[in-house]
Amino acid sequence: MTNLHGVFAASLTPMDENLNVDEAAFAAHLRRLLDAGCHGLAVFGTTGEANSLSEKEKISALENLVESGVPGEKLLAGTGACSLTETVRLTRAAIEAGTAGVLVLPPFYYKDVPDEGIYRYFGEVIERVSDERMKLYLYHFPQMTGGVGFGLSLIERLVEAYPDAIVGMKDSEGNWPRIEEICRTFPGFETFAGTERFLLDTLEAGGVGCISATTNLTSRLSREVHDFHEAGKTDEARERQKRLTELRQTLEGFPAIPALKATMRRLTNEEGWRNIRPPIVGMDDVRAEELFGRLPKGELL
Amino acid sequence: MTNLHGVFAASLTPMDENLNVDEAAFAAHLRRLLDAGCHGLAVFGTTGEANSLSEKEKISALENLVESGVPGEKLLAGTGACSLTETVRLTRAAIEAGTAGVLVLPPFYYKDVPDEGIYRYFGEVIERVSDERMKLYLYHFPQMTGGVGFGLSLIERLVEAYPDAIVGMKDSEGNWPRIEEICRTFPGFETFAGTERFLLDTLEAGGVGCISATTNLTSRLSREVHDFHEAGKTDEARERQKRLTELRQTLEGFPAIPALKATMRRLTNEEGWRNIRPPIVGMDDVRAEELFGRLPKGELL
Repeated sequence: MTNLHGVFAASLTPMDENLNVDEAAFAAHLRRLLDAGCHGLAVFGTTGEANSLSEKEKISALENLVESGVPGEKLLAGTGACSLTETVRLTRAAIEAGTAGVLVLPPFYYKDVPDEGIYRYFGEVIERVSDERMKLYLYHFPQMTGGVGFGLSLIERLVEAYPDAIVGMKDSEGNWPRIEEICRTFPGFETFAGTERFLLDTLEAGGVGCISATTNLTSRLSREVHDFHEAGKTDEARERQKRLTELRQTLEGFPAIPALKATMRRLTNEEGWRNIRPPIVGMDDVRAEELFGRLPKGELL
Repeated sequence: MTNLHGVFAASLTPMDENLNVDEAAFAAHLRRLLDAGCHGLAVFGTTGEANSLSEKEKISALENLVESGVPGEKLLAGTGACSLTETVRLTRAAIEAGTAGVLVLPPFYYKDVPDEGIYRYFGEVIERVSDERMKLYLYHFPQMTGGVGFGLSLIERLVEAYPDAIVGMKDSEGNWPRIEEICRTFPGFETFAGTERFLLDTLEAGGVGCISATTNLTSRLSREVHDFHEAGKTDEARERQKRLTELRQTLEGFPAIPALKATMRRLTNEEGWRNIRPPIVGMDDVRAEELFGRLPKGELL
């Protein structure tokens, strides 16, 4: 029995006109994703513009989401910052808010740091938080962290040292052989692919699911892949995965956060989806229409 | 008359055994650097492990440094974070503390962002801080920010839009032709080279000086280069620059922060210089001795 399992959307973060988190719209979006079939929700990941928000904003929004009735046990909270002390405080707050786990980037400012430095960083985080409720997922995304990430020997060292705290990983490198190797090398370690393109492959290899940006739009189809796989209906699972992969490929032709927010605006008619924090720039209406025209509307969300 | 000028050390941040900022040791180190000839001090830059510290820690340390008598007008404070709101609060705090300027990284988590996104980000920072005392220096260090930086057309656009707020730049790309081009293209824009290797060249090209990690050890020699240049003593300036470049080259053979902290420990016999925040890992004693043996002790600091 794993701590987390299945289809997770890396949720967008709705914002108001002043570019503050729009907490009511955020809670509504999370509920919509759960209704569409997500097993859970990763909040404050890359897609959630987490690194454009401050510690204070993330803690406040997280507490308010849970207070407003979003089930904490469905939430995986991104708490990795460059700074050790900030990561510790965010992680504590996420645990206190009742989230099911934390998704933690390696400290990503300094480059070419030795594995020993990443190892010590996570050791400090775990010891300073010192809470047996902590379920930590490593967040591997070297394209965004300038190469700072988790090689297999580092994963092994971390899991051996902190088997109760470090329970899984989100792998967003987009490299299937690597994900497969992690699934095979670390049975019981909860490996999520960072794209639903690898959802069925990951489940078949012994991983637990996917956590993906585009699942903001593909929850239903992703869930069908998952459920057919669980039911042993291989042909149906493969057919759904094929459609899911095609949909993902269409979306990959556009910059992720702008494309997702623009499409949510078209789907919901809520103008608030235009709000986006720099350095990310929203998609212009012409491009948004081009994308929307290419999407299978009936299969979205 | 420029706002800032001359030789700036990108100061190390002394820490205690719990890896908190050791404010007394920090103030003492800054005074030592001023005594050794620095015109000013960049605090909370890359070398200062700024991105391993939280917003709260930086604001508190900055206020306490100034209260303890470190002259605010000699300080250039690093205030650039990934998050717009954090950068705004840090910048406000630095201005309130009486620092002479702020050194601001571009938001560095998201990659391949358009220039328009960086432009909007700085516009938001300047408008939200909204303080005519602000003197902002762009911090260009693409090796550390995964390519996010300031091309010449972006610099031009920013300086035209915010001529009173954006007054200069620290360029740490290590690319001399680029620095020279910036000096020639934007006369009056205060361009600092990110290494003292280019100190004399930068001054001759119309730039204002250097802000460098290794100036924690080379302040005296760097100041001599500067002063001979100012006095029009070209031969002496070149001779000193040659020695300075050799010293810099020796230091470049070692990872910067660990090498600088290890050498400070040998020079001062203060064990606190061993303390360093992960993901940076301190240098072992054997390597530290190897480096120390190669340094011209009489010319340091």
